[in-house]
Amino acid sequence: MIPYIAVVGPSAGKPSDHAVGEQVGRLIARSGAILVCGGLGGVMEAAAAGCAEAGGTSVGILPTELRSDANPHVTVAVATGMGEARNAVVVRTADAVIAVGGEFGTLSEIALALKMGKPVVGIGTWAMQREGLESDPIIRAATPEEAVAIAIAAAS
Amino acid sequence: MIPYIAVVGPSAGKPSDHAVGEQVGRLIARSGAILVCGGLGGVMEAAAAGCAEAGGTSVGILPTELRSDANPHVTVAVATGMGEARNAVVVRTADAVIAVGGEFGTLSEIALALKMGKPVVGIGTWAMQREGLESDPIIRAATPEEAVAIAIAAAS
Amino acid sequence: MIPYIAVVGPSAGKPSDHAVGEQVGRLIARSGAILVCGGLGGVMEAAAAGCAEAGGTSVGILPTELRSDANPHVTVAVATGMGEARNAVVVRTADAVIAVGGEFGTLSEIALALKMGKPVVGIGTWAMQREGLESDPIIRAATPEEAVAIAIAAAS
Amino acid sequence: MIPYIAVVGPSAGKPSDHAVGEQVGRLIARSGAILVCGGLGGVMEAAAAGCAEAGGTSVGILPTELRSDANPHVTVAVATGMGEARNAVVVRTADAVIAVGGEFGTLSEIALALKMGKPVVGIGTWAMQREGLESDPIIRAATPEEAVAIAIAAAS
Repeated sequence: MIPYIAVVGPSAGKPSDHAVGEQVGRLIARSGAILVCGGLGGVMEAAAAGCAEAGGTSVGILPTELRSDANPHVTVAVATGMGEARNAVVVRTADAVIAVGGEFGTLSEIALALKMGKPVVGIGTWAMQREGLESDPIIRAATPEEAVAIAIAAAS
Repeated sequence: MIPYIAVVGPSAGKPSDHAVGEQVGRLIARSGAILVCGGLGGVMEAAAAGCAEAGGTSVGILPTELRSDANPHVTVAVATGMGEARNAVVVRTADAVIAVGGEFGTLSEIALALKMGKPVVGIGTWAMQREGLESDPIIRAATPEEAVAIAIAAAS
Repeated sequence: MIPYIAVVGPSAGKPSDHAVGEQVGRLIARSGAILVCGGLGGVMEAAAAGCAEAGGTSVGILPTELRSDANPHVTVAVATGMGEARNAVVVRTADAVIAVGGEFGTLSEIALALKMGKPVVGIGTWAMQREGLESDPIIRAATPEEAVAIAIAAAS
Repeated sequence: MIPYIAVVGPSAGKPSDHAVGEQVGRLIARSGAILVCGGLGGVMEAAAAGCAEAGGTSVGILPTELRSDANPHVTVAVATGMGEARNAVVVRTADAVIAVGGEFGTLSEIALALKMGKPVVGIGTWAMQREGLESDPIIRAATPEEAVAIAIAAAS
């Protein structure tokens, strides 16, 4: 089966997050995987743009009822009309998740993926701590290349 | 914008329903639209197969948590893990809906689409009646060719 | 277990539908069951009002993000923020469904309930027909008393 | 309007988490608020038990399709059949959230609540850190009494 890799990150991130997202999207496409994202702007759009540029396929799973809310780079847009509940669909659809930067919505996607037992790779994203948690549940990557390599390997 | 046409129908339909679904999928692809379906077997699979054969793009929006439950012909599979609630996502994502044959799940998708104000084209599908309803809310088509032509026109 | 009976019907129904809904809600409360509804106006509100008047408990499962959209008679309001996808939650939560009058949203709830194998009792609601369907899938009731008696019996 | 307070925490937490959850549930009931929880065991069950003991009302919003999966203490159970996506419904329904202990599912509910702009009070729960985050987004409480007082005040 073709692996599906979700890229999660803020709709209004820093320029450096967007650059990382775009390169991650490009590398997912080059690896032959399908990119899953939330369909909106910021890191989601950058990742979809990188994927499209490299000839890849992406799906944008929107919180809203309107497919026209999708960024112009996704191959296929899905309008859930379910608000934040769509975050669970984004990560459920993926074999592995790459988190780039991130606001609270991104944190929810990281947590949902970990709850579902899916591997999460992070670049410049949230750290979390809790009594009794012995190791970092996120696999940290320093570069887009490293992040995508880890995610593809973990997805198999 | 590229139109999105949903094809809804039973997972275990009659052979004639499957033949209609396959031709509908083929014609949707040839028209340049994207096919949306529920991702499982029966009419959904026939439509996705026709679409793939004609070089088109389809998205299968599954009720289950496992992308591997998708039929092998969808271009992109989305695992909602939301059971029958995914029927609302299938029709929300589409500009128009073509109903082929159908069990109760199909009837729910017809009704949800009508509630959302989306055009519904039917081939050999449900009829419904209620006091005060003056005309058939479904546009009836006799052939796959007619169904797709109506749906594409209505989607614009 | 306490039975849960859903009452589904239009948010802007006829006065006679509202009177039926109110009496259905009252009788559900008197039978000791919990009333499930969509939480908004019309038949949903009438049923919740009848239930409250008889000292019963009701839950209103809203499509919107705001609990304040609920009618003032529900005991507990749930804000799904999921639009029409909440129709699946209304019927999934119930052991049996009573449909009073109805627009397309009501038809979708009838169809989802039948798909889930739940008994549906109808008063002045939709009729549906399909090739090969031999009998009416809805149990027809002439009065609120009859509808609630059938639903409670079927829920057990 | 009656305030709704969600209590989120693990289904298999530590005994001390359960004791805190039970006292939180009791105090929510005494304050006249409605308790919202995920309907299952552990902290969810302890909170619902405390609430019931104090004569309060609670709603358990389940991930599964079966109302019988609810713990026996919830006043009303809602069967979403939507898996982890129900976490968004739990927090959407509440005016404020109290997090007790917690696994990844709890972290997702904290993050979804913060994304929705809802106040989150924590007792012995997750800490999170991210570049540029200047203050703790969770209001920390040392006791159930303090947690409920803060949540009720924040909910108004």
